[in-house]
Amino acid sequence: MHPKFLTKLQQHLSKEFVLTDPQKCWPYGTDGTQCFFMPETVVLPKTHDDVVFITRLCNEYEIPLVPRGAGSGAVGGAVPIHGGIVMSMMRMHNIVSIDHENRVMIAEPGITNLAIQIAAKKHNLFWAPDPGSREYCSLGGNLAHNSSGPRAIKYGTVRENVLALKAVTGNGDTIHTGAYTTKNVVGYDLTRLLIGSEGTLATITEATLKLLPLPKKQMTLRALYRSIEGATTAVTQIMGQAELPSALEFMDKTTVDLVRQYGGVDLPQGVEALLLIGIDGNDHSINDVVSIIQEASKTSDLMTIDIAKDEQESQKLWQARRRISPSLRHVAPKKINEDIVVPVSKIPALLKALEKLSKQYGITIVSFGHAGNGNIHVNLMYDPDNKLQAAHVDECLQKVFTIVLNLNGSLSGEHGIGLSKQAFITQEVDEHSLNLMRQIKQVFDPKGILNPGKIFPANSPPL
Amino acid sequence: MHPKFLTKLQQHLSKEFVLTDPQKCWPYGTDGTQCFFMPETVVLPKTHDDVVFITRLCNEYEIPLVPRGAGSGAVGGAVPIHGGIVMSMMRMHNIVSIDHENRVMIAEPGITNLAIQIAAKKHNLFWAPDPGSREYCSLGGNLAHNSSGPRAIKYGTVRENVLALKAVTGNGDTIHTGAYTTKNVVGYDLTRLLIGSEGTLATITEATLKLLPLPKKQMTLRALYRSIEGATTAVTQIMGQAELPSALEFMDKTTVDLVRQYGGVDLPQGVEALLLIGIDGNDHSINDVVSIIQEASKTSDLMTIDIAKDEQESQKLWQARRRISPSLRHVAPKKINEDIVVPVSKIPALLKALEKLSKQYGITIVSFGHAGNGNIHVNLMYDPDNKLQAAHVDECLQKVFTIVLNLNGSLSGEHGIGLSKQAFITQEVDEHSLNLMRQIKQVFDPKGILNPGKIFPANSPPL
Repeated sequence: MHPKFLTKLQQHLSKEFVLTDPQKCWPYGTDGTQCFFMPETVVLPKTHDDVVFITRLCNEYEIPLVPRGAGSGAVGGAVPIHGGIVMSMMRMHNIVSIDHENRVMIAEPGITNLAIQIAAKKHNLFWAPDPGSREYCSLGGNLAHNSSGPRAIKYGTVRENVLALKAVTGNGDTIHTGAYTTKNVVGYDLTRLLIGSEGTLATITEATLKLLPLPKKQMTLRALYRSIEGATTAVTQIMGQAELPSALEFMDKTTVDLVRQYGGVDLPQGVEALLLIGIDGNDHSINDVVSIIQEASKTSDLMTIDIAKDEQESQKLWQARRRISPSLRHVAPKKINEDIVVPVSKIPALLKALEKLSKQYGITIVSFGHAGNGNIHVNLMYDPDNKLQAAHVDECLQKVFTIVLNLNGSLSGEHGIGLSKQAFITQEVDEHSLNLMRQIKQVFDPKGILNPGKIFPANSPPL
Repeated sequence: MHPKFLTKLQQHLSKEFVLTDPQKCWPYGTDGTQCFFMPETVVLPKTHDDVVFITRLCNEYEIPLVPRGAGSGAVGGAVPIHGGIVMSMMRMHNIVSIDHENRVMIAEPGITNLAIQIAAKKHNLFWAPDPGSREYCSLGGNLAHNSSGPRAIKYGTVRENVLALKAVTGNGDTIHTGAYTTKNVVGYDLTRLLIGSEGTLATITEATLKLLPLPKKQMTLRALYRSIEGATTAVTQIMGQAELPSALEFMDKTTVDLVRQYGGVDLPQGVEALLLIGIDGNDHSINDVVSIIQEASKTSDLMTIDIAKDEQESQKLWQARRRISPSLRHVAPKKINEDIVVPVSKIPALLKALEKLSKQYGITIVSFGHAGNGNIHVNLMYDPDNKLQAAHVDECLQKVFTIVLNLNGSLSGEHGIGLSKQAFITQEVDEHSLNLMRQIKQVFDPKGILNPGKIFPANSPPL
């Protein structure tokens, strides 16, 4: 790295926010996956102007610049595979404004999802996206990967809940996309283009979030099934009527066992699948919706369906749900965690095919997730020390993706492509579209400094 | 036009679908505005492959290609200002599939919005966007301008209700964007990039629409106010609570007079503003919502609030609402119809400022529209034969836009930019963003054949 480059950085930001000591840089080299690449330098901007300065400098010296949120991403999206600068956005964690009359919050990318929810709640509002990692994941990460969590089923994903963005392109230009209003069609939709672009097009420095009125009442239902088919049929039935739940989470047997073991939730034996159903509404309407959804949950393999006794039991269930992913890592530290999506009616076919695959390869496959959107988190619990498993896990994963795509599904619902899935993207995205995306990348980031080596296949042909 | 070009067109499409006779081409030279440009040739493709063939040919001969739906657009988006080919999509009006289990419809762009609704209704589903022109406007036009109508308040705009697109870029490449699922983050969001791009990036040949369950019951409330402030305060109150109406339409006094005169709706004297409120829900919940919204509608200037007696009265009110725009044209054939947006809390300030402007310029300004989204249709009822009005109408319009932007609003909610607003776009979109948009246009359409001369300012500098 050019010494002048570093001097200029240190002149602009205080020294304590330009990290070069490997020990200090080290934590910024990984994310929610196990991959690690050492950043050469880590910078921690505090303002939009800092981001402009850093980006211009990196652009001038052609040094890779990897924007980074809380580092909880699941696809290696925030790791600096070509070295260079990691730019942690975590010092930019302010709420710029809350406008309760128009239900709009403007926030910086370093704020956690939970902090957004807490601030919104004071105005009887909420922001729809709430990934399982909401306690520590950052807004910037939610925007980068369109990470939306369980409530997307009723309230949409990040793309449906952001109105406008302020961002810095690869050559350091500031852009303002979208509008402060819920309707807007003035030129091309750059807002949604940036959402889900995983930091490869521009660094978001402010997001204008569409908030929603907090429902007066929330309830949790827990339905236990003797078979997977029983549960998945119920999912299709629930999604086939007008009153949508605010969450519809599926857990297979292994997940149920984990929740029992690590979550401290009392569950009877013989449960092959569980649905965790969130319902919201006002004091009057909620009981209606509860009985409608209870009715829709009934299949021949239903064991019991219960309303969480109280807020405490409800919290316990959701807490257990949020802990599934970390708990699974205890069992299989090297597990491969995918977040594929299939049309809701194809969930039974997906799970049946996964079961077959699991037997064929001798690899336990654990499935749980946002069944209402068909967004299932599929975990291949392989042991790298088991040579047979290790030799076939890639083949098994490829088969998972083939099954998903044959069911008219998608490779990722909310984790993104990053590093982990770039080898597979051409199986879903056609050549012309991928080529357009590559050229769009070049338009926003002519020197290719922003988060290089992500999304696009590594050995993809030049434009 | 090169004779070989025409021969090739006629060899591919049957002669009856390649129009060259000026009399037959003439209707394709205008749209919902008064501007007219004569197409040199009109083609009417029937299949995706036809569109590919036509586009490749136009690209080869560098001939402008203007895709066109029903021609009801409000900004001259579909007129061939540089001549060339107009490609009417109205023969491509098939529903490719309806998947009621997953609530998805795939349809071609020439289908009318109403035909979509009728087909969806058979499965107890609906597509949220329903512009006032829904009886004749096409899906393609809805996609081109993100035109969403009243229900956007509760169910979102076109962008929130489309999952995937099949389209043909400027050089004739076929692309498939998005996915069949409600969650998806695999590469950049080309779906939303095309929605609202007014036919300048690619021609959409199939759209995968997200349908919603049809509410079991619908009701219409009509609230009459002695003052504009009374009504706009009620709008803020209604939008400030959790139970959203499915439509919240505002009419000012002039509009009320029109509805009385042309719509055959009986309304008392002294009404200065009217709110037409749509509410949907199930048999039980709807009465709750009605009483909540009735309560929220109360301000000191409320005269009466009534529930439409029956379906017939309700239909009469909505029919009258949909006829406002055509009726206004009877009164002022050359009226300028804008569809600006402001944050809901700024509607009172907007209307006050418009009243002042109206007095200042002696031009009647009629305002009505989707108050719940702050999307107000502002009509400057000027008479071109009145020299004083004609001399100042442009200045007045500029002041309208300045007011809107100062209130943190946007130039267009659902009409788009097209030809009519291209001179103003730089007032809302910053230079860097506009430059990115221009370069994106070049990526999708390297020779600039697709709907040239739209959106971007006419005398904008080269890249």
